Amino acid sequence: MNFASDNTGPVHPNVLAALTAANTGYALPYGGDDLTARAVEEVRDVFEAPDAAVFFVSLGTAANSLILATLSKPWETVFCHTLAHIHEDECNAPEFYSGGTKLTLVPGQGAKMTAETLRHSILAQETRGIHGPQRGPVSLTQATERGTIYSLKEIQDISTTAQEFDLPLHMDGARFANALQSLGCSAAEMTWKSGVDAVTFGGTKNGLMAVEAVIFFDPKHALEFEFRRKRGAHLFSKHRFLAAQIQSYLTEDLWLSMAKSSNDACSRLVQGLHKISDVQINFEPQANIIFAHWSRAAHQRLHAAGAQYYVLEGDYTAGPADELLPARLVTDWSATPENVDKFLNILRG
Amino acid sequence: MNFASDNTGPVHPNVLAALTAANTGYALPYGGDDLTARAVEEVRDVFEAPDAAVFFVSLGTAANSLILATLSKPWETVFCHTLAHIHEDECNAPEFYSGGTKLTLVPGQGAKMTAETLRHSILAQETRGIHGPQRGPVSLTQATERGTIYSLKEIQDISTTAQEFDLPLHMDGARFANALQSLGCSAAEMTWKSGVDAVTFGGTKNGLMAVEAVIFFDPKHALEFEFRRKRGAHLFSKHRFLAAQIQSYLTEDLWLSMAKSSNDACSRLVQGLHKISDVQINFEPQANIIFAHWSRAAHQRLHAAGAQYYVLEGDYTAGPADELLPARLVTDWSATPENVDKFLNILRG
Amino acid sequence: MNFASDNTGPVHPNVLAALTAANTGYALPYGGDDLTARAVEEVRDVFEAPDAAVFFVSLGTAANSLILATLSKPWETVFCHTLAHIHEDECNAPEFYSGGTKLTLVPGQGAKMTAETLRHSILAQETRGIHGPQRGPVSLTQATERGTIYSLKEIQDISTTAQEFDLPLHMDGARFANALQSLGCSAAEMTWKSGVDAVTFGGTKNGLMAVEAVIFFDPKHALEFEFRRKRGAHLFSKHRFLAAQIQSYLTEDLWLSMAKSSNDACSRLVQGLHKISDVQINFEPQANIIFAHWSRAAHQRLHAAGAQYYVLEGDYTAGPADELLPARLVTDWSATPENVDKFLNILRG
Amino acid sequence: MNFASDNTGPVHPNVLAALTAANTGYALPYGGDDLTARAVEEVRDVFEAPDAAVFFVSLGTAANSLILATLSKPWETVFCHTLAHIHEDECNAPEFYSGGTKLTLVPGQGAKMTAETLRHSILAQETRGIHGPQRGPVSLTQATERGTIYSLKEIQDISTTAQEFDLPLHMDGARFANALQSLGCSAAEMTWKSGVDAVTFGGTKNGLMAVEAVIFFDPKHALEFEFRRKRGAHLFSKHRFLAAQIQSYLTEDLWLSMAKSSNDACSRLVQGLHKISDVQINFEPQANIIFAHWSRAAHQRLHAAGAQYYVLEGDYTAGPADELLPARLVTDWSATPENVDKFLNILRG
Repeated sequence: MNFASDNTGPVHPNVLAALTAANTGYALPYGGDDLTARAVEEVRDVFEAPDAAVFFVSLGTAANSLILATLSKPWETVFCHTLAHIHEDECNAPEFYSGGTKLTLVPGQGAKMTAETLRHSILAQETRGIHGPQRGPVSLTQATERGTIYSLKEIQDISTTAQEFDLPLHMDGARFANALQSLGCSAAEMTWKSGVDAVTFGGTKNGLMAVEAVIFFDPKHALEFEFRRKRGAHLFSKHRFLAAQIQSYLTEDLWLSMAKSSNDACSRLVQGLHKISDVQINFEPQANIIFAHWSRAAHQRLHAAGAQYYVLEGDYTAGPADELLPARLVTDWSATPENVDKFLNILRG
Repeated sequence: MNFASDNTGPVHPNVLAALTAANTGYALPYGGDDLTARAVEEVRDVFEAPDAAVFFVSLGTAANSLILATLSKPWETVFCHTLAHIHEDECNAPEFYSGGTKLTLVPGQGAKMTAETLRHSILAQETRGIHGPQRGPVSLTQATERGTIYSLKEIQDISTTAQEFDLPLHMDGARFANALQSLGCSAAEMTWKSGVDAVTFGGTKNGLMAVEAVIFFDPKHALEFEFRRKRGAHLFSKHRFLAAQIQSYLTEDLWLSMAKSSNDACSRLVQGLHKISDVQINFEPQANIIFAHWSRAAHQRLHAAGAQYYVLEGDYTAGPADELLPARLVTDWSATPENVDKFLNILRG
Repeated sequence: MNFASDNTGPVHPNVLAALTAANTGYALPYGGDDLTARAVEEVRDVFEAPDAAVFFVSLGTAANSLILATLSKPWETVFCHTLAHIHEDECNAPEFYSGGTKLTLVPGQGAKMTAETLRHSILAQETRGIHGPQRGPVSLTQATERGTIYSLKEIQDISTTAQEFDLPLHMDGARFANALQSLGCSAAEMTWKSGVDAVTFGGTKNGLMAVEAVIFFDPKHALEFEFRRKRGAHLFSKHRFLAAQIQSYLTEDLWLSMAKSSNDACSRLVQGLHKISDVQINFEPQANIIFAHWSRAAHQRLHAAGAQYYVLEGDYTAGPADELLPARLVTDWSATPENVDKFLNILRG
Repeated sequence: MNFASDNTGPVHPNVLAALTAANTGYALPYGGDDLTARAVEEVRDVFEAPDAAVFFVSLGTAANSLILATLSKPWETVFCHTLAHIHEDECNAPEFYSGGTKLTLVPGQGAKMTAETLRHSILAQETRGIHGPQRGPVSLTQATERGTIYSLKEIQDISTTAQEFDLPLHMDGARFANALQSLGCSAAEMTWKSGVDAVTFGGTKNGLMAVEAVIFFDPKHALEFEFRRKRGAHLFSKHRFLAAQIQSYLTEDLWLSMAKSSNDACSRLVQGLHKISDVQINFEPQANIIFAHWSRAAHQRLHAAGAQYYVLEGDYTAGPADELLPARLVTDWSATPENVDKFLNILRG
């Protein structure tokens, strides 16, 4: 019953098998190997983007920061939601990589900006000539940090607004697969067909060891990104081991089946939670994350039984038994219906 | 009738006289001259701070950015009001100088944070361990960009909150003299006696050509600041001409009499505006800045008569005559009662 | 016969086995797992440094840049050899991470600075007061980029010079194991017992997939490093997979036996090359790298036979058969005596 | 007898008069004033460059750093002479402004690079693909820090080499006027007609208070420079006082007559020094700087008589009377033949 995060579980066995398979003989370093060339092609295929520039790095923060640095100037501001990972959880990495770009926090229900809140935020910037920060890229998180998902229509509306001001659109897809599986559309539809210019195509939170693909649909950004990646110390020498992970990820849609597994576990949890009185669900869970409140007594039962998850506020070990305390549950590919049901049973009391 | 800004008017004649007086013979460069040594002492005297580290630079943005870079680490966030100059009008200079420090925007009425809003913002940061931005310096603007002033009690409450979290407190005093003259207290009382650690002691907006003094009440910051100033290309070679301006500024309280002159003109404007129906004043003007609304017709009369000031929104040249449009008026040391009265007469119609 | 680099060969099977073994159940992310705690202890044991601050990152450039940024100020200059990896092969990453620190290039035979050349370079800096770059850390490469090794005495002399000027000493040990195995001393002797303050303890070039350990013998640097690592996007979430590599590396001295294997292959190559007339060896190979010249005809024979290595200058495919062209050979842990002998036989003609 | 530097002497009286003349009434800030517009035109006229982008800042280090940041990428290296001001005397400001660009030191006699040494340095860079620093702008100092001057032919040869590699050429003209007066050519000939792309057109070392003009002959750089200047905190609010200095500088060729005055004083010194036995002149003085050796006894006589200049090495107050110690003499516009002769007489003994 580990619902602490989608980076605490095991790597899918296929990924380890792919690493082993890749470990034969000699290969050119720094991405010059055949495996990397093939993995790049496979990413292009998945995104129906034969000209896209594709790169692999090992951390989502690196992918996000390097992309935003490539798309922005240091005197600009990036538009992102108040709860965006790039704002809350990257310890100023985007500011560091971009040379001091600002982040403008765009509000919105359910951890999502809207075309309207974005427009309002854009209009409020670049009103002071050269004196204020200039308008820069827009960055969406899909799925969001609260487990919600932008619909295709929402993405398209946001991109229309961004394009109106000639601003590039980035998608932080640390949980890209969960969102895509939930929407049931194609990777192309969720990205360039909806106006997205660059994507962090996450793997680490979805069963890989440590790989994120960076995708620019316009290859003009390729060379600058290569320099930024190397200067940022994110160019792997034994690059075939990044490529091998991506290959196993895309083979026979493993990435989608893993996302389905975690999303299904999440849905099962949600359905169970809805049936339990005194459980309040705070956002509409559309991917693999749940924010909910339940009683301290239930928190205590769960922890006593070894369940792992974050209680977000308050001391669950002491206080009124019926006080509601907030929790976050994240399911990963390895979550099982049995564990979900066991968790619900204990919660139910 | 020029109320566009306090950087559009002339320099006080004493300042030019001081430049001329300083222009005799040879002097060591880079602040090694006698005039600089004396000017530093005079600043220390005014602030009753004999150990303070005092530096001169020529721009307020430089002073603010260099101070904040000295007081922060690049993985921290600076707490400032949503309307702070360092956020709105410095084109990411604080982020640049600090190596990517973030700015956390603290809300508050009248362009002022309060101890409570600050505490709320501080508590919301550094809650994510090493993953989020860490808490950094607090920066106040005195007087604010909307013409309001922090009382000594408000400054003290804010500094108490900052100290509770061990955060240094900076005061952006681009309009320090206007605030001080309005409060009627001493420079020491408005700063270190109220818990301020470092000050941008502005001169440029108050009759000087281009000088701001940087003051650290704890001289331990001196050497780092010197390196940052030099590396930032803000160390003047012919430094005596910065010192001469400061000396003329402090001689016989010229700085305070200039601030009184601009504050008095502002008060006279405010009193006049209050008597005119259909004029709405948006913030309580306590220094030398007024935000107000009045009719398009009145805007047209004023501009036709040659008045200079900013109409903040809307096209004053075309539209309904009685529509109220917002304006900003700033008075400087050279504003005269005659010009104020003339302006009011025209506005009155 | 692949002697192109020590990052082209396979990972040691034990490393893959360790990854698989680590892939069971759930583990706290970001280094909070037990495996990481144990790996840190094992590194401390190997270095006889129970208080050392130890961190894992996946790239040598990241380790070097983050260490140097932690040990320096942006207005300083790092002293390194003209041929240092941090200068030649990191695309300005050290400058980026440090916020603009300069690198002062120290000359020296055999790719090694000496206490004397270092002293000369140090004395030439910080002679211009606040105007020039200030003296910063000294960085050694052990083994060097030319395959030579600093003796303990040389390291100690350099550290004595560094200490005289109160400058910290960093060792870029991308090939730490090769150097140590060659010197036959302990890790402690080659580092803190000889005055080294911080080490990049390389694994990637010696049979690991992608891990370098960062070691500060004075733990006061720990917290700053943690922030810099996170801000630099180098904090792995599934951290156990870095720790597992390090554990397998240190288990039963695998790291030293792999280094011995590559060093032995190198020695065997050197001995063979010495016996071939018309082969010139340019530096004294002490680790696993050889720089040598031989005839174009021999280059052609080798390439025709499938040998992989870099011809550093000139076109080996066309030109006078007896013209000597320079080559670099690097042996890794997987090099075999058979392949070495085969290579020598072909070269011999 | 003050030959310490060309930033220790007085500002020309015309400059102060121009400041006073500019101090009437109100003017738009930040360069929006008429005086600035006219000064920009006058600079364009002097350089016969009607389309040039022209900006004013107050420090040479700011001008150099902002120009180089505009012309480079952070993963590049700037080519400059080992003795360049940007390397030796700017405390890493170019690295700071550019976000970590490296400086590659090009050797050359007389503090001057040559087309050949430059070519050699260029060829040695960008040989390692994406791993090493990439080739960036070339920066010349005219006149050099040792008082020598590049001939038009030398500039043209250097620019031919730079263009061959598609690298922009910057001229650090802190002593532009001295060089131009010495060469007797036009500003256009010494710059864009010889292939220079951007110029720091110095005023501060030649009689102004604190202004340097930045000139890009291709105006495409204008907007980026404006953002960089603002973000760097170098955009003056009361901008008319920079423009007034430039106007007085260019009026009736004051800049050239001041340069002639300092160059003439330098020549007179050189001629005198040549006639004194035991005086060794180290570089060929072509502008207003002399490096020479003479005896400790002579140094003592000069200092006793109140002469001001730098003794570059050794203690002139104690030691053998006939030991030669190196000195630097710099003449500024205010140097007089009388003071020169007096200095020579004392030196002569």
